[in-house]
Amino acid sequence: MKKGKGYLIPGHFDEYIEEAKRFHGFAAPGLLVGGFMVSKAIKHFPAGVLYEVLCETSKCLPDAVQLLTPCTIGNGRLRIISLGRFALSLFNKDTGSGVRVFPNPAKVESWEELNAWYTKLQTKHEQDLSLLISQIKQAGEEILEQQPIRVKPEVYRKISRGPIVLCPVCKETFPAAVGSSCLAWQGKSPYVA
Amino acid sequence: MKKGKGYLIPGHFDEYIEEAKRFHGFAAPGLLVGGFMVSKAIKHFPAGVLYEVLCETSKCLPDAVQLLTPCTIGNGRLRIISLGRFALSLFNKDTGSGVRVFPNPAKVESWEELNAWYTKLQTKHEQDLSLLISQIKQAGEEILEQQPIRVKPEVYRKISRGPIVLCPVCKETFPAAVGSSCLAWQGKSPYVA
Repeated sequence: MKKGKGYLIPGHFDEYIEEAKRFHGFAAPGLLVGGFMVSKAIKHFPAGVLYEVLCETSKCLPDAVQLLTPCTIGNGRLRIISLGRFALSLFNKDTGSGVRVFPNPAKVESWEELNAWYTKLQTKHEQDLSLLISQIKQAGEEILEQQPIRVKPEVYRKISRGPIVLCPVCKETFPAAVGSSCLAWQGKSPYVA
Repeated sequence: MKKGKGYLIPGHFDEYIEEAKRFHGFAAPGLLVGGFMVSKAIKHFPAGVLYEVLCETSKCLPDAVQLLTPCTIGNGRLRIISLGRFALSLFNKDTGSGVRVFPNPAKVESWEELNAWYTKLQTKHEQDLSLLISQIKQAGEEILEQQPIRVKPEVYRKISRGPIVLCPVCKETFPAAVGSSCLAWQGKSPYVA
C-alpha cells in the first residue's frame, strides 16, 4: 500500500481507519463510507488517466478524496459544490466525462444502524459507533450506486486569474481582474472591522 | 515530530517538503511559504485552545493547513473564502478572535526569486525552482506579517442543516431546508443534462 494515497479500501479498511484518525481527527462514518465511494469510482479510470474530483458536500467526503487520491483542495484537483447530497464524481480532467457515486437510500435501508446515521434519525449520542462502523465495513460498496456523468465545461475548466497587483488599501497583492481594490475591501471581508 | 500534524516548519523544512510531495503531488512554493505562515500563526494559540482556520485563497494554502494542523475541509475546521489574497487566519472557535498572517510585499521584495514568484513576474517555466525553494527556506517567517483579527460570527458559527429528506426527482437525500427538491434539481447541477 502506498502510504496514504492510491490504495483501495476493500482489504485496507483498518489501515484507512488509522489514516482517517490522523488526518481528520477521528474515523467519522462519512469518511468511511466515502472511502468505499472513492474506491468504487476510481476503478472507472485506467492507470495513467488524470482525473479530478467534484464533491457535492463539504462534510467528510472531501477528506476521503484527499486521503485516497492525488486530488486535494490546495492543488486544484478537488472541487466542492455544496449541493447537500452525499455524492462525488471523478472525471477526466480534459473531457469532464466520468462517474458519479452515491449511496442508494433503498439499499442503505437494509442496514439498520447505517440507515439511522445516513438519514439522521439518530443523534451522535444515540449512535452505536462500533456497530455502525462494522456495518459500514460489511456493506462496503454494496450500498453504492454509480452513474455516468459529464461535468459542465464552465465548472471544470481552469481559468487563469491573470496578473496580480497591490491593493491600494491593504497593500497586499490581489488579482487585478477583480477591480481597483481587493475583494476584502469591496465589502467581502470575513472580519469584524 | 508527530507524523504529518502538529509540528512547526522551522527545523523540519525537509520533512515538510516530503509530506508536501506525498499529499499535494509536489513541493509547491505556495505550500512551503504557507507552512511558515501556519507555523507563525499557531504560536498565537496556547496548547489546548481549539482553533479553526480561514484561508483567503484556495491555491496551495489550504493544503499547508491540512498538513500541519488538525483542521481539514472535511471536518469543518477549515474554511476557504476566495478573496485572492495569499493570507490565512487562525481563530478561537468559540470567540472568532485570532491572528491573520500574510507575506508583506515590501519584505518579499528583497528576495529576488521569491518576489518574482509572489508577484507572478515569471512563468513557471522561467522559475529557478531550487533557488526559489532555498530563498523560501532562508527567508522563513522573516517576510511575514501578522495582525489581530476577529472573524464575523456569521462566518464562523456552525449552523445545523436540520433534517434530511428524499428528493422526489433524484431519490437521494438532501437537507429539507433548501426546498421541495434538492439543489441539483433547482438548477444548480454541475453536470451536463
